Amino acid sequence: MPTLDDLSTPCLLLDRDRLVRNLARMQAIADRLGVALRPHLKTAKSVEVARLAVAAGAKGLTVSTLKEAEYFAGHGFHDLFYAVSIVGRHVPRLLQLARSGVVVQAGVDSAEAARQVVAAAGATPLAFRIEIDCGEARGGLGPDAPELLEVARLLTAGGHRLMGVFTHAGHSYDVRDVESRRAVARQEQAAVLAAKARLVAAGFACETVSCGSTPSAVNAEPVPGVTELRAGVYQFGDLFQAGVGSHGLEDIAVSVLATVIRKRPDKNTLLIDAGAFALSKDRATATLGPGLDAGFGRLADESGALIEPPLYVKHAYQEHGLVTSASPIDYHRFPLGARVRVLPNHACPTAAAHDRYRVVTGKSVVAEWERVNGW
Amino acid sequence: MPTLDDLSTPCLLLDRDRLVRNLARMQAIADRLGVALRPHLKTAKSVEVARLAVAAGAKGLTVSTLKEAEYFAGHGFHDLFYAVSIVGRHVPRLLQLARSGVVVQAGVDSAEAARQVVAAAGATPLAFRIEIDCGEARGGLGPDAPELLEVARLLTAGGHRLMGVFTHAGHSYDVRDVESRRAVARQEQAAVLAAKARLVAAGFACETVSCGSTPSAVNAEPVPGVTELRAGVYQFGDLFQAGVGSHGLEDIAVSVLATVIRKRPDKNTLLIDAGAFALSKDRATATLGPGLDAGFGRLADESGALIEPPLYVKHAYQEHGLVTSASPIDYHRFPLGARVRVLPNHACPTAAAHDRYRVVTGKSVVAEWERVNGW
Repeated sequence: MPTLDDLSTPCLLLDRDRLVRNLARMQAIADRLGVALRPHLKTAKSVEVARLAVAAGAKGLTVSTLKEAEYFAGHGFHDLFYAVSIVGRHVPRLLQLARSGVVVQAGVDSAEAARQVVAAAGATPLAFRIEIDCGEARGGLGPDAPELLEVARLLTAGGHRLMGVFTHAGHSYDVRDVESRRAVARQEQAAVLAAKARLVAAGFACETVSCGSTPSAVNAEPVPGVTELRAGVYQFGDLFQAGVGSHGLEDIAVSVLATVIRKRPDKNTLLIDAGAFALSKDRATATLGPGLDAGFGRLADESGALIEPPLYVKHAYQEHGLVTSASPIDYHRFPLGARVRVLPNHACPTAAAHDRYRVVTGKSVVAEWERVNGW
Repeated sequence: MPTLDDLSTPCLLLDRDRLVRNLARMQAIADRLGVALRPHLKTAKSVEVARLAVAAGAKGLTVSTLKEAEYFAGHGFHDLFYAVSIVGRHVPRLLQLARSGVVVQAGVDSAEAARQVVAAAGATPLAFRIEIDCGEARGGLGPDAPELLEVARLLTAGGHRLMGVFTHAGHSYDVRDVESRRAVARQEQAAVLAAKARLVAAGFACETVSCGSTPSAVNAEPVPGVTELRAGVYQFGDLFQAGVGSHGLEDIAVSVLATVIRKRPDKNTLLIDAGAFALSKDRATATLGPGLDAGFGRLADESGALIEPPLYVKHAYQEHGLVTSASPIDYHRFPLGARVRVLPNHACPTAAAHDRYRVVTGKSVVAEWERVNGW
């Protein structure tokens, strides 16, 4: 069996045991909330991860791009939700999927968009959910927006199925204490339930009531009427999620394997061959303040154990990472050629920098899984 | 001939006329400086761009990854420099290339690394350049470091060719006025020339004296003894380089084509279907201050003309970009489904988010060129 020594760096590692544990933990949260888990594959973009999530109890998948929809459909996943509100230009790829027998639900969040998709779909019935803005102010209609009923009317009059409502509490990432995250989770649930109540009162079907976001999921309480949870990053975890308490540091399943290529004891630095392209420029932990700000990533050793005192990637050049520490670096641990794992600020963009996972248990490489990047 | 209307969004556009103009301009700078231009393909990662650069007068290519080296070698480019200082673990891929008849020069910047590469190379002669630190404090040896001669001795005693010295003035990105950039360019030239003088005095060959970085290149004056220039980002240009005066806004050759998917006049925002994954999270222009800070990108219209008053991507979610402006947005210009081009902060990471270029002149798509991402 190959080991880490057989890999060229930088490359993306995925710890299988941690992944399986993370999948089980979120499934247990969904079970406790009494909702279906429709995991968001925007992070993993992997059919192997999707299969493990379904084996753990997930019902259907959420995707972030039409390319993901096409990829998962091609691998036999036929219950898909594209959690982006679309316009007429996006309909041809949905029609292509529908003609192959796969109806991918998509979002709609304005009357203008509803008119476009109805016109573009022609006689082919599609399935839609209406996006609700629960406070993030990204996409979606407010739960009390008059346009909500107009969208429902346009879609159903056009011969399409209205499957329900969904929202994304992206602002759960912006609050810094547990009580505030609980409040966001309640706000999220209340928004979709209020929207559903208006739709049902007006005579529309609204079977699915769907909430998203890992921080709000782990801080939610059961509320009758909410039917679905769409978290994604929990599958891998990262330094930001650990920083806000969504999981522990020991749960982070993805990392970037890198090689030490230079030592500068005069500056208390190391140089590794993983830079901004392998790690991403995401600095999510910068918002968490001193003590939790991990620069461009925190170092673990080759086996995945956190290095103490902590080492951080302080600067990320295109293909170089400059590592430093608040304490003197123990250079005896790092001969040139030594391997380290860099834990990411934010699992999604770091994983997106790579085309595949080297799946590991300890130092053994047990599998190689592809990713479906791009659009 | 296909047009932008035939493309799914988001996708990466490359304006061929601007690219050709940018290549010619840097070649003219190299000619004026009396040095060979060995363009860095870390930005473009494209054999088509490399061919155009060579047609414009470039001598050899610089690459940032061994995968690029393998890719360009496979396309018939046999004069390559991997501008990263390596350790023993990186040697097997160089040996593989050497066995196929392509010697890729690589960097070395410590005696420990020199010992490792000599041991790993065995009896196969390779070619190296010694990396010099001209003030960036990333990699490289100071021009006066005693270790410099030790590295030269180890490499040549191991049977390898010492081709010269190189440096990268990455700190040219950190200074904010023309005189300071000129000073960095002088510092860069002085550092490699001082290192060369020591090597030559000690009896070593040092044919190549190579400088890098687009901002220092456009601000350099001719200095006898410098033989090579290795800039890269000039090929495409970006908002950061325009902000520091390396070129004009009208020279930016890459952009991300996106579709307007939502309008929020109540918040003076637009939502587009290009977010952090399509644009990257690079915020290089943030360091340029008000007036030049372009958020996550500045919008041009479908034909490539800058939109005035300016529209910027203020927030970059994974697959959504939230666009806003200091002035009221003219919503009549943006029906849902309208197309815009987002100019990048930093061309390198934005291009790296995509697997190919749609090469355009105006709204016509004249070619599709692949990129060699990853490692």
